[in-house]
Amino acid sequence: MRHVRLIIEYDGTRYQGWQTQRSGLTIQDTIGRAVSGLTGEQSEIRSASRTDAGVHALGQVAVFSTVSGLPAATIERALNATLPQDIRILRAEELESEFHPRYRAVKKSYFYLIEKAQKQSVFTHPYTWRVSSALDVAAMSRAATLLLGEHDFSAFRAAGCGAKTTVRTVYCISVTSHDHLDFMTVRLKGDFISVRIEANAFLRHMVRNIVGTLAEVGKGKISPEEIRGILASCDRNAAGPTAPARGLFLEEVFY
Amino acid sequence: MRHVRLIIEYDGTRYQGWQTQRSGLTIQDTIGRAVSGLTGEQSEIRSASRTDAGVHALGQVAVFSTVSGLPAATIERALNATLPQDIRILRAEELESEFHPRYRAVKKSYFYLIEKAQKQSVFTHPYTWRVSSALDVAAMSRAATLLLGEHDFSAFRAAGCGAKTTVRTVYCISVTSHDHLDFMTVRLKGDFISVRIEANAFLRHMVRNIVGTLAEVGKGKISPEEIRGILASCDRNAAGPTAPARGLFLEEVFY
Repeated sequence: MRHVRLIIEYDGTRYQGWQTQRSGLTIQDTIGRAVSGLTGEQSEIRSASRTDAGVHALGQVAVFSTVSGLPAATIERALNATLPQDIRILRAEELESEFHPRYRAVKKSYFYLIEKAQKQSVFTHPYTWRVSSALDVAAMSRAATLLLGEHDFSAFRAAGCGAKTTVRTVYCISVTSHDHLDFMTVRLKGDFISVRIEANAFLRHMVRNIVGTLAEVGKGKISPEEIRGILASCDRNAAGPTAPARGLFLEEVFY
Repeated sequence: MRHVRLIIEYDGTRYQGWQTQRSGLTIQDTIGRAVSGLTGEQSEIRSASRTDAGVHALGQVAVFSTVSGLPAATIERALNATLPQDIRILRAEELESEFHPRYRAVKKSYFYLIEKAQKQSVFTHPYTWRVSSALDVAAMSRAATLLLGEHDFSAFRAAGCGAKTTVRTVYCISVTSHDHLDFMTVRLKGDFISVRIEANAFLRHMVRNIVGTLAEVGKGKISPEEIRGILASCDRNAAGPTAPARGLFLEEVFY
């Protein structure tokens, strides 16, 4: 049996997320069909992150096993020839041994985009969360630093999250304001905030719940210092709402 | 009768172009339905440019007439509330008198994006033409300058173009290479070429035919100096192929 690792970029707009669902188009199914069309086998495609519906990825990692003798470069080319244009295999590479992309990951990074606007550009809409009220970026940034390090992140965990432990370590978190976003060669002026987080692993909806809570801090509804109490409470109801999926990008998975 | 001007941004990916068709979704129809839903009238929506299927716009201009007394700001807000997310009214403004956005335009600008790549990012795919061979940007730029000024552009006109005269004046044309394109906060490294053209008016497919011809120059199939002969021939067959629609953006219309 051979084991093949795929580095994958996708625009999640059209998909019901990574994971196979009873109904609806998913990225796992779409790649699974492309792989079985190529190898004739029904391989399970395991990923580093089970991104939600509408979440995008710049470097998702997935692994499948096959008895086929096709070189990795051929697999990459053949998958790209059949996959829809919003899913791209950036690289396919052969692994020495079996490898679980989620359990073996030592770190992952995500970023999230917020747009403070009355109306959105058609070009930012699929990739940003539009917030109409003013946000205090300095306060959001102070709150964010309180999440750094090892904590029980239960307060930021979605109902139905299956993780056995809820302690995670956040290595980096930054909140940055931007007076424009570039789209191709076009400068889209506006009022944007990006939140970038690196952690050893993430609970379900953890980034979206952190961003939703930071937005409450930005609006002045929660003080930055209250983040300590929210963490300590281990109570999902203490934190802010879940930010929408479409502003979230899985950036990179580290091994 | 009041006359309202709309400045419109759209992502043309899902549409069969601006103009009403016997079948298929168009931008004119989509805006027309939103306007008549608001005013109860069947107003004709006239635009500055009848963009092709898949072409995008940063500043399309359209005008309609109405007997409704709704303020322009209300029209803007109400249209944006009903239009799909890939069409946005950037501004609605009342005009003193009737105004034809195409005949009254004194200048328009378009730009076009080419991506030299074996495979495309999912984020650039809807907005760039992928070319797999090497392109000589300096040669393309030399060729482009020969199009500056007043010429008969018949060689760059699509079959079926209804324009009465074929003489147009190109005020600016530039060919620029980029080692990356920015997408939101992400730097997409690669090999990109943008072509930007300002002219008093354009024949049907004129920008796409110019870009297709410049790409032939970039590949070395046509020498830059041959552009003179192509212009003089007034023969569409002398020029290069029509570049795909999805790399084209209507940038601005000047009055």
